[in-house]
Amino acid sequence: MSTVKKAVDDAALDQLFRTARTYNGWLPTPVSDALIRQLYDTLKMAPTSGNCNPMRVVFVKSPEGKKKLLPGLKPANAEKTMQAPVTAVMGYDTEFYEHLELLAPHVAKDRRANYIADPELAQRAAFRNATLQGAYMIMAARALGLDCGPMSGILHDVLDHEFFPGGKVVSNFIMNIGYGDPASVRPRAARFEFDDVCTII
Amino acid sequence: MSTVKKAVDDAALDQLFRTARTYNGWLPTPVSDALIRQLYDTLKMAPTSGNCNPMRVVFVKSPEGKKKLLPGLKPANAEKTMQAPVTAVMGYDTEFYEHLELLAPHVAKDRRANYIADPELAQRAAFRNATLQGAYMIMAARALGLDCGPMSGILHDVLDHEFFPGGKVVSNFIMNIGYGDPASVRPRAARFEFDDVCTII
Repeated sequence: MSTVKKAVDDAALDQLFRTARTYNGWLPTPVSDALIRQLYDTLKMAPTSGNCNPMRVVFVKSPEGKKKLLPGLKPANAEKTMQAPVTAVMGYDTEFYEHLELLAPHVAKDRRANYIADPELAQRAAFRNATLQGAYMIMAARALGLDCGPMSGILHDVLDHEFFPGGKVVSNFIMNIGYGDPASVRPRAARFEFDDVCTII
Repeated sequence: MSTVKKAVDDAALDQLFRTARTYNGWLPTPVSDALIRQLYDTLKMAPTSGNCNPMRVVFVKSPEGKKKLLPGLKPANAEKTMQAPVTAVMGYDTEFYEHLELLAPHVAKDRRANYIADPELAQRAAFRNATLQGAYMIMAARALGLDCGPMSGILHDVLDHEFFPGGKVVSNFIMNIGYGDPASVRPRAARFEFDDVCTII
């Protein structure tokens, strides 16, 4: 038996990457709490540096929650975000290293000390790894049949104050989640060719 | 016909997320240049903010290239990286906004001006979006039947000097790619439960 895995089928490659699109409008189909939990339980398995898992998320579904979001959105993002079944406010815990006893028990003490001694290293690790987890969420959502509309046009101070009080967790970006309205997709924008941005040596 | 998409099948969910693992040792099976190109052509479709696509990659396959990598690795990452069929040195273009005429022609001038006026915004956009693209590469590699071993234990100055001369592109993290040796996988580490890090409001 070969230990080499095969590619997933064409339908899965399309759904995850090739025909998947960012949506700017949403069908009224709701997203259940059970599916949101399945989304997290899927993405949480993907790798972070030293298993540090710094991402923290508030999934906003209710009209009251949406009202709190509004002042933190740039105008171009307001209408579609109010309409989306779910908006995930993606943040990261700047003191993620306080949880390493659970996540990486064998090295927790040394790593915590390293991060505390070098706040710039800790900040970059939190931002980098929470962002990896944000991308895993996009991919997991698509894998589960959901559509996404990620956005970085937000007022961080406003969202931090509203959704992550206390100052330890800070916002990264936000993401609408639901079943996208096909009419809301923009024409596909250009990508770089391989040789524009990659080399093989 | 429902416009709601179904989840990909269980085999694909396993391959991408649920049973996928980080590998620390590699089978001798090579990875073709054609497959590396397919990897980029798959991941490049996934979204970045304003389609900014700041990721730049050097795929290191040759013994000469591997020799250049070695001084930029922390000792714990050296042996497995020398052994891997491919090591991707993931970087980002700090002047990514100079390419918006291709990537986002309708808004290129305004966005370029915004980023130039706010270097902190530009730096965060470059780092965030190249990191999203790094996660897309992990997911695309798994989708294509490849295994990954991403690492942030690198000496950035050494790798920048060697792989991204000129100073415009800087290193983010590195990733071994190939067909993983099942014996090199560590026991699965714990993850947070949903309610530890997520809320629904």
